[in-house]
Amino acid sequence: GADGFKITSSDKKHQVRIRGAVQTDARFWLNDNTSRSIDKFEVKQARIWLEGYFFKDIYFKIMPDFAASSNILPDAYLDYAYHPAASLLVGKFKPSISLERLQGDSDGTFLERGFPTYLASNRDVGIQLHGAFSKPGYKAETVAGPIDTKNTFTYQIGVSNGSGDDGSPNNNSPDTDNNKEVVGRLFAHPFHHTGYSWLEGLGLGVAGSVGNPDKQGLKAQATPIGRTTYLDYTKLNTGFAAPTSDGATYRIYPQAYWFSGPFGAIGEYVISSQHLVSGRTDVKQDNKAWQILASYVVTGEDNSFAGVKPIQNFDPLKGKWGALQLAARYSELDVDDATFRIVDPNLSASKAKAWTLGANWYLNSNAIIRADYENVSFDGGAARGRDMPNESIFATRFQLSF
Amino acid sequence: GADGFKITSSDKKHQVRIRGAVQTDARFWLNDNTSRSIDKFEVKQARIWLEGYFFKDIYFKIMPDFAASSNILPDAYLDYAYHPAASLLVGKFKPSISLERLQGDSDGTFLERGFPTYLASNRDVGIQLHGAFSKPGYKAETVAGPIDTKNTFTYQIGVSNGSGDDGSPNNNSPDTDNNKEVVGRLFAHPFHHTGYSWLEGLGLGVAGSVGNPDKQGLKAQATPIGRTTYLDYTKLNTGFAAPTSDGATYRIYPQAYWFSGPFGAIGEYVISSQHLVSGRTDVKQDNKAWQILASYVVTGEDNSFAGVKPIQNFDPLKGKWGALQLAARYSELDVDDATFRIVDPNLSASKAKAWTLGANWYLNSNAIIRADYENVSFDGGAARGRDMPNESIFATRFQLSF
Amino acid sequence: GADGFKITSSDKKHQVRIRGAVQTDARFWLNDNTSRSIDKFEVKQARIWLEGYFFKDIYFKIMPDFAASSNILPDAYLDYAYHPAASLLVGKFKPSISLERLQGDSDGTFLERGFPTYLASNRDVGIQLHGAFSKPGYKAETVAGPIDTKNTFTYQIGVSNGSGDDGSPNNNSPDTDNNKEVVGRLFAHPFHHTGYSWLEGLGLGVAGSVGNPDKQGLKAQATPIGRTTYLDYTKLNTGFAAPTSDGATYRIYPQAYWFSGPFGAIGEYVISSQHLVSGRTDVKQDNKAWQILASYVVTGEDNSFAGVKPIQNFDPLKGKWGALQLAARYSELDVDDATFRIVDPNLSASKAKAWTLGANWYLNSNAIIRADYENVSFDGGAARGRDMPNESIFATRFQLSF
Repeated sequence: GADGFKITSSDKKHQVRIRGAVQTDARFWLNDNTSRSIDKFEVKQARIWLEGYFFKDIYFKIMPDFAASSNILPDAYLDYAYHPAASLLVGKFKPSISLERLQGDSDGTFLERGFPTYLASNRDVGIQLHGAFSKPGYKAETVAGPIDTKNTFTYQIGVSNGSGDDGSPNNNSPDTDNNKEVVGRLFAHPFHHTGYSWLEGLGLGVAGSVGNPDKQGLKAQATPIGRTTYLDYTKLNTGFAAPTSDGATYRIYPQAYWFSGPFGAIGEYVISSQHLVSGRTDVKQDNKAWQILASYVVTGEDNSFAGVKPIQNFDPLKGKWGALQLAARYSELDVDDATFRIVDPNLSASKAKAWTLGANWYLNSNAIIRADYENVSFDGGAARGRDMPNESIFATRFQLSF
Repeated sequence: GADGFKITSSDKKHQVRIRGAVQTDARFWLNDNTSRSIDKFEVKQARIWLEGYFFKDIYFKIMPDFAASSNILPDAYLDYAYHPAASLLVGKFKPSISLERLQGDSDGTFLERGFPTYLASNRDVGIQLHGAFSKPGYKAETVAGPIDTKNTFTYQIGVSNGSGDDGSPNNNSPDTDNNKEVVGRLFAHPFHHTGYSWLEGLGLGVAGSVGNPDKQGLKAQATPIGRTTYLDYTKLNTGFAAPTSDGATYRIYPQAYWFSGPFGAIGEYVISSQHLVSGRTDVKQDNKAWQILASYVVTGEDNSFAGVKPIQNFDPLKGKWGALQLAARYSELDVDDATFRIVDPNLSASKAKAWTLGANWYLNSNAIIRADYENVSFDGGAARGRDMPNESIFATRFQLSF
Repeated sequence: GADGFKITSSDKKHQVRIRGAVQTDARFWLNDNTSRSIDKFEVKQARIWLEGYFFKDIYFKIMPDFAASSNILPDAYLDYAYHPAASLLVGKFKPSISLERLQGDSDGTFLERGFPTYLASNRDVGIQLHGAFSKPGYKAETVAGPIDTKNTFTYQIGVSNGSGDDGSPNNNSPDTDNNKEVVGRLFAHPFHHTGYSWLEGLGLGVAGSVGNPDKQGLKAQATPIGRTTYLDYTKLNTGFAAPTSDGATYRIYPQAYWFSGPFGAIGEYVISSQHLVSGRTDVKQDNKAWQILASYVVTGEDNSFAGVKPIQNFDPLKGKWGALQLAARYSELDVDDATFRIVDPNLSASKAKAWTLGANWYLNSNAIIRADYENVSFDGGAARGRDMPNESIFATRFQLSF
């Protein structure tokens, strides 16, 4: 059906679900006098995948992405969900740090996530213990995979290779150093089953990681929707070699969402600390980012962390138009000034601030047409102390997922 | 069943079809004294894909090709077919230019398409409006995707990145310049529903494109079945840098097919014009190609643009042998002489002429064994004004598709 | 069901089976003072594939591996199994040489195969005639694909591109030379249908290949579980260019297995001969390897070449624990001393000897948790005639396959 195509064994103990997702985008830069960016059509995502379970509690997901230029295998994991309070997840999955990263890749409010997401790993390979508890008197629900939005209280604690800020290992994901990263997250829906219906959809949590990478490569930081680099670890002050992340790292991610009727909001703050080492220079870099986004479904449907289900599916000849969600976001990322002892401040910005407006037209529960406008301004990043020029982008997406 | 494996929702509104195709080839060069080419076995195509529809009129196709060395995602599109007269196709698909390119990748008469196909893009990312009309008194049929062979009159008009002659963007297909390409096509079956049954299968059309690429890379031109380069934009006259396609381009493709009983024919002509720019040298290059192919099903089945369905499936112990189709093709490509102001005429030919003989043995509607012989001769391309040596190739294919 | 998800046409003539496999590993080196190797989590295998048949006897398999860094298409073949005595297999598949290589990729006794496997090609593209015969009075069973463990006597004879020791061509697998390799194998279960039940599971055979490659590249040889290079054809004696395999090659693989109740054993010997040519130096290199492995299912299930099916599936709250198999292996590879006329003996070992202990915990017929310990010692490979330091590795695997 519309919620996917499933094959279930006659004894109901085994199930495989055949899933797919396509995202076809168009991106146009406004006032792009410097021609930094190329207006383009692109296939952002083209996935065919299997998920399901064997013997009821061994869940799996194998998800390639054929539109990816490097990470062609975003997810490949097993989750032994023997008991709601303790499940064992192994393989490649989203590390349990950024709330917005953990949101489904077809479910976001905007075409791309905000700044906080890019100060943690995108995907990583490792092992995680996770579980959920319910309010006394209620039964916790088993939820497989890295994100649980259903239970009163959830925890995740794991060990993984550590793939760096915005890192996403390709293929079989060999690590580059012996040191591993520890990741943990606590998240609660404190008003579950309390009867305060307008607060049932409030979720609060905090996540973090500690690691100690050995000469790990650094990925450039880019703007959310334009994916334009504004912090480039290869453009350096005279006399410096390309820095690596070498030494103790930690991240702290307080995070929250609130969904109530047609209204929704997500907020997240992050501090991500690492040591940039270039030759004998060792700089402690504490990058910070935060965002707040709000959305409203004008056609009256319920808002949720997993998107909107229209009351009436699109069928204009019958006067049915689907659901319309409007959204706004403010997000910023502050690069530690110490960075610019190594990185050239004339070519990388020390701060990026983005505000974004979006409209999501849900034709039905599978098809969405999205349009976003984003404006990003920068501190520094141009010659003689001037600022990088603002980025203004208009982007659309046609999306089908099942 | 033999026409594919489908899962349909109980309300018939949603369907996914699980499809696959394998092509395993052998290619042997005859009289290849210069050892230009390597005799080989190869897997030409290995595809697993999903296609289907949601809410009846939102069609989709997600098709990776695991045998491809670069373009691992040939097709990824959505097609909102709300009305036969106006459907909206978005994503990555075959641009509506070359008739033979639009033929199904498992349905060709020979192992590889003729010369005209290689003077347009193979795949591109963009958006297309298309539709179909029927003879008055008949109802047009909704056909999703880039090719419609069923209706009396069809049109396609689209905008896409533009990927150059024989271009095929990989993965998420970033464009390299801001300028887009406009592509259009008109195609008619003028004798549909006329009662002249021997003319019902006649189709006539014309397609074209206009663009204005900015320093777009150029792909070498190669022979149809051998895929041997005879026009190499990296082997240049002394003092020239590698040229790009830079400036106004256009293509015109008059095209026709005719299928009547066991007989079939396809013909196509093309002029593809672009500017080769190398430093200060700007050359207007008008390349031309054409082909005519004819085929005949000796076992009595109907010929068609989508292949042959045997009356009796192969089962030799029961004296059943499947269907046999014989075919011949003449095809040539004329490189504009102006090209050789930049490109070295001792290493690239100014004209290639190929004649091809083929036999297709349809074991059943899924399995085909093909054998082709092709001879290509060239004008120029060797030292001191001599011609490149002829290419003679014998090739076979075992193919399964569903 | 647990044995896979199948869609069969109503007339039973066509079937497609949707299959998947995930292997998530952890590898830790013990006493790795030199930090040659990186402790890591990794996704070793992530496959989604289709196999099945059309018109009853045309079998196919299309199997990509999304965790592979280079060979993303391990198998893509058609097998026309018209009669048990003569089937025609075309495409990309495991060449019929090493017995352990032919074992299913999810069915091995240890995480990785022993040394003999790496002296033949991993995968190759070509064509193979194969068939099976039964003891007089019994009917041979049709078995599609490259491995047949069911019939009394089987043969395989094929021609393929030849991809070198441990070679595995990527994508559409173009060959690099005109010369092809001939591969043959004979294998018998002499006690099938004899009533000596403890000998029914004994299989004996011999396989071999002959070829004559022209300047084919050489792949490094690596330890079984650690995949650490100990023979590196790029680290050479002064004055030598990188050698290629150039001239007559042959391989001989006597092989056997025996499964009887809970006990299992596999043994294999190989001599693989080729010419290393570097400039004017032409060295005939005869590498040799062998292994013997034994396993025992302590929980009482039957052992087999295709793994173990637990009597009771894992369900600890009900006191059910699955099946446990213990195993040991000794394996060695002897590099021909002539190699070191070209290759630097201070950086490559002349012999590697590995002993391995393993435990396989079958939770059910789909999920296995494996743990292996392996110790590899070397002759030579360090400066001044000393030996490379031993490799000690502990590795685990969580595996699901269906």
